[in-house]
Amino acid sequence: MADSDAHKIAKAAKYAFENSQLIPASERVKALQEIRNVLDANKTEILEANKLDLQAARLEVEAGRMSESLMKRLDLGKGDKWDSMSQGISDVAGLPDPTGSVSYASELDDGLELYRVSCPIGVLLVIFEARPEVVVNIASLAIKSGNAAILKGGKESSRTTSLLSKAISTGLAKTSLPETYIQTVQTRAEVSSLLELDQYIDLVIPRGSNSLVRNIQNSTRIPVMGHADGLCSVFLDETADVEKAVRIVVDSKTDYPSACNAAENLIIHEAVLNTVWPTVARALLEANVTLLCDPASLEVVKSLPSPPKNLNAHVKLSEPSSYTTEHLSLTLSVITLSSLKSAIEFINAHSSHHTDSIVTESDESASMFCRGVDSAGTFVNASTRFADGFRYGFGTEVGISTGRIHARGPVGLEGLVTYKYMMRSKSQSGHIVGEFGTGKKRYKHEKIETNTVPF
Amino acid sequence: MADSDAHKIAKAAKYAFENSQLIPASERVKALQEIRNVLDANKTEILEANKLDLQAARLEVEAGRMSESLMKRLDLGKGDKWDSMSQGISDVAGLPDPTGSVSYASELDDGLELYRVSCPIGVLLVIFEARPEVVVNIASLAIKSGNAAILKGGKESSRTTSLLSKAISTGLAKTSLPETYIQTVQTRAEVSSLLELDQYIDLVIPRGSNSLVRNIQNSTRIPVMGHADGLCSVFLDETADVEKAVRIVVDSKTDYPSACNAAENLIIHEAVLNTVWPTVARALLEANVTLLCDPASLEVVKSLPSPPKNLNAHVKLSEPSSYTTEHLSLTLSVITLSSLKSAIEFINAHSSHHTDSIVTESDESASMFCRGVDSAGTFVNASTRFADGFRYGFGTEVGISTGRIHARGPVGLEGLVTYKYMMRSKSQSGHIVGEFGTGKKRYKHEKIETNTVPF
Repeated sequence: MADSDAHKIAKAAKYAFENSQLIPASERVKALQEIRNVLDANKTEILEANKLDLQAARLEVEAGRMSESLMKRLDLGKGDKWDSMSQGISDVAGLPDPTGSVSYASELDDGLELYRVSCPIGVLLVIFEARPEVVVNIASLAIKSGNAAILKGGKESSRTTSLLSKAISTGLAKTSLPETYIQTVQTRAEVSSLLELDQYIDLVIPRGSNSLVRNIQNSTRIPVMGHADGLCSVFLDETADVEKAVRIVVDSKTDYPSACNAAENLIIHEAVLNTVWPTVARALLEANVTLLCDPASLEVVKSLPSPPKNLNAHVKLSEPSSYTTEHLSLTLSVITLSSLKSAIEFINAHSSHHTDSIVTESDESASMFCRGVDSAGTFVNASTRFADGFRYGFGTEVGISTGRIHARGPVGLEGLVTYKYMMRSKSQSGHIVGEFGTGKKRYKHEKIETNTVPF
Repeated sequence: MADSDAHKIAKAAKYAFENSQLIPASERVKALQEIRNVLDANKTEILEANKLDLQAARLEVEAGRMSESLMKRLDLGKGDKWDSMSQGISDVAGLPDPTGSVSYASELDDGLELYRVSCPIGVLLVIFEARPEVVVNIASLAIKSGNAAILKGGKESSRTTSLLSKAISTGLAKTSLPETYIQTVQTRAEVSSLLELDQYIDLVIPRGSNSLVRNIQNSTRIPVMGHADGLCSVFLDETADVEKAVRIVVDSKTDYPSACNAAENLIIHEAVLNTVWPTVARALLEANVTLLCDPASLEVVKSLPSPPKNLNAHVKLSEPSSYTTEHLSLTLSVITLSSLKSAIEFINAHSSHHTDSIVTESDESASMFCRGVDSAGTFVNASTRFADGFRYGFGTEVGISTGRIHARGPVGLEGLVTYKYMMRSKSQSGHIVGEFGTGKKRYKHEKIETNTVPF
């Protein structure tokens, strides 16, 4: 049953994508405006449904079957959540069109022109948990970039997301875009079936916990864009400035500990173990960070003059597994190493290739670190927390990818486009390959300066 | 056994890749020169080994266990094959370095700079069949782009490829690049084990038959770059010029019928069934092409005035499966449709999203076709055979991808690189995220004009 439903949905999505290719991009911007209007007009009704989701969730929390924090993420009425969701649609609508721009253009022969043009990927399958506003956020990104999408939210927010989806459909219906451009599915069985349909679905984007992402990566041949882990490190080089070290380590760890770009490991060059580390350790302890230390760094902390009150409770000996654990809390694993080279090797072996930062006054160390560390982000004297699509200036964030293929690091709208090659012959008799070769015509390969396709 | 060997090899490849990141790109160019020298110095010995492979293959052919054409592909001594393999190394060495170039640079705040820099992907697993020169070709591309690689050739050419691999190792040993930068494996069991090791291997590139590519796509979670099918179409629009139609259809079909960019389907707008099609059909029959026609196009061919001699042998009624068959020979499937829109839908449903061409005098039809057809290449009045990395001007071809993620269509060296973000704070106290936000600092996002990283 789920199989045939899923097949129908996926096929309809592909059909919608293909049919949308001849509709101008302006219609997609119009769709976003219509969706925002429908949402705002139905705000009361949607927030009522959201309250029912919250009530049901509260019972689950009381029965011990749901965490308090998950329940909180369901709440769409809290603070400025609704307004920022609604404003987000217009913000995405206002971004530059990621499709139709030329990244390579060449005249292969007199009158034979080649253009590499950005275009949507096709059909996206987006799977997320809990937070209901993600359905609107992702639908906006898909529509703006010209992709059809199939969305699956968490069952905990089903009353809310079903009304949000209805609003999206109603908005779409006011445009010439196909009705099945954005579809939603409700059950895990449908998702399992959809993950088999690589003839219709071109990219899977999981937004949620590590285990969600891992499960999906393990069960589909469709490319997956997402990050399985955020295990970031800060390295204090032998020339590290103490003020920079304190600011960057504390910010990387404490600014938002449950984010994927928060630091989980601190690596100390042994040359600064007795100079920089004591001040950094004290600052971390004062910020309520628990330290899992190797023997060398532990000894220094234990001998701090006028030790902080909470010392014994907050400083522990680390285990090997400490350095491969994504704490996502106010806990930091600390290790001492004897060189920049060892630090690079340690990071490459233990980090999740997300974002790693060096604190150093040496240009040479900075350069070595940035090239030697094999991560999506390699930073010098800056907090790992800067790894973010908005902070990078992309105007939005589709996600952060720890994959290396297609998109890496924070991903903006351009992560939702690919390219195609358009070629045009303007010659009297068209162009054929048989006219080129030894003793015949030769290719010109003359660069054409343009950002758009002229036909 | 194969499992632990494969693990060792994959781990060594990752280690080699990581260690090579601090070695300048000039050393990779030097490695290519050294490899060419070693190969040329050992030409006689390698060609002797190749003769043994050929002798063994001849016995297989005589016993009916190998095809004549596969045996021919093993021959490294034929014509200018050696010289072009050898020259190919220098050609790749001379291409621009695909790594280290900046595609996005932005000042996020005073003194906080972000650079998106191209860099190698990591460890490539390249699996190919029969033709022994591919080992040299692929090793050159991997080395030039800074990737470590594990290569697996066909067992039919094992004597040759083992000497070619030895030459590559000897060449590499004359540089500071790690010894395990390029490794070769011999058995299928090793490949099966390697396909499991996504913690070490970043991209799989199969070069060979469709069934090889399909098998690999079905048995790994590692991203695969390759094309499973080359099912290209030519569409004769209602405004098609007859001379262009003849030239483009004949070239697309007959220039190299076994290539993936050869046309397999011809779609005729019904408006030109009695005007353009008769001349095109006659030209195809004169070029010895067998036509699998739908009833409408068949009737026209059957009523050709002064019909070609071979008419009945070379014209047959098509079946539904004709239009999803990659003939790879002088056979063309022909169908008549009533509109450009139907042709676009037919291509999207039947072609392999590789390359499709329209013959038209209408700018509007050209534009609709190029946007509506969801393929890596959409051409106007040009042969599908132009879909090729060298013809596109990339200087080399890593392969042709029918995937949409990462690389699409003919892939040059840039298909072997990804990017990373490097960030540097030049401020007195480093940069932290906690200083930005409502009532605090705002991001500048000011574009930096540069192609290289200044540190």
